[in-house]
Amino acid sequence: MGEVTRIMVAVNESSLKGYPHPSISSKGAFDWTIKKIVRDNVSSFNLLFLHVQVPDEDGFDDMDSIYASPDDFKRMKQRDRIRGAHLLEYFVNKCHEIGVGCQAWIKQGDPKEVICHEVKRVQPDFLVVGSRGLGPFQKVFVGTVSEFCVKHAECPVITIKRKADETPQDPVDD
Amino acid sequence: MGEVTRIMVAVNESSLKGYPHPSISSKGAFDWTIKKIVRDNVSSFNLLFLHVQVPDEDGFDDMDSIYASPDDFKRMKQRDRIRGAHLLEYFVNKCHEIGVGCQAWIKQGDPKEVICHEVKRVQPDFLVVGSRGLGPFQKVFVGTVSEFCVKHAECPVITIKRKADETPQDPVDD
Repeated sequence: MGEVTRIMVAVNESSLKGYPHPSISSKGAFDWTIKKIVRDNVSSFNLLFLHVQVPDEDGFDDMDSIYASPDDFKRMKQRDRIRGAHLLEYFVNKCHEIGVGCQAWIKQGDPKEVICHEVKRVQPDFLVVGSRGLGPFQKVFVGTVSEFCVKHAECPVITIKRKADETPQDPVDD
Repeated sequence: MGEVTRIMVAVNESSLKGYPHPSISSKGAFDWTIKKIVRDNVSSFNLLFLHVQVPDEDGFDDMDSIYASPDDFKRMKQRDRIRGAHLLEYFVNKCHEIGVGCQAWIKQGDPKEVICHEVKRVQPDFLVVGSRGLGPFQKVFVGTVSEFCVKHAECPVITIKRKADETPQDPVDD
C-alpha cells in the first residue's frame, strides 16, 4: 500500500540529572505511537526522531563547570553532542528491537521553532509530541511546545499528554 | 497484538444545500486516517463516527419551512435524523468497502461539548477532527471545534487541516 507513513517524533531529555535518558513525556509519546499506531504493521511506518538541544540550557544547569578558555566551550559542545546521541540511541535501539525503520538527528535552537522548521524540510506525514501536561488541577494546560506545533507545523500534529499517575511530584522532574 | 485501536472520527455535513454529504474537512480527515494510519492493517483498527447535530441550525437554514403545528417540529426532527443517517451512511459504506470495522452514531448539541463528552464516555484511543483551516493568509487559524477538543478531550487529538487547494472560494461552502 504505497509509501511508508513517516512519523516524526520530537524527543527530549529528562531534566533529572545524570546519564541522559528520555523525558517521561517523550517516552510516553513513543510508546503510544508504537502501541496504538504502528502495532504489528512495522513495515508500513518509519519513525523520524528529532532532538532539539537548547544551546545554553545545559551550560547554565551545570554549576560545576567553569569556562575559562575556548577549549572549555568546545568540550561543552562535545559533551552536548554525546548526551544527545545517547538520548537518540535509546529510541533507535527500541526501534531496532521492534523492527521498525527509523532515523534520528539532533538540531540546536528553540525547540518549537526548530521542530516546525524540520517539519517543513522533512515533510513527515504527521508529528507526535509529548506534553508534560497536567496535574489533576491543570486539565486545560498543554505544553507550549506542543501547542505551538499544533498551530504552526505544516503537518497534522498529535499531542500525547503524560498520564496523571506518571507526573512526578516536582513538575520540573520530567 | 492486543485490542484493536479505536479511532473516533468527528464528522459533519457540508453546508452546501442539497442531499446531505460530508464536509470537505470531514472527508479529508477520514481519507487521511485510512491512508496514513489504517493502511492495509484493517483488522487492527475500529473507526467510531460521531456526528453532532446542532438542534436549531437546520431549522434556521431552511427558509422554505413554516412551522405552524407541533407536527411540523416532529417532521423537522424526523428530517434531521434522516439527514444525519445519510451522512453516516457515507462513512459506514466506505469502511465496509475497505474492510475496516466501524460504528456510527448521532448526538444533538454543541459539537465541541458533545465530542468531548462522547470521548469521555466511549474512551477511544484517539480522536480525529477535520478543520476548515486556513486559506493561504490564515496559516495560524485552526477551527474552534478542533482547538477546543485538542485542549479538553480526554484522549490524544489529531487535527487534519483541509488543504489550501480544497478550500472553496466561499469559505462557508465546505
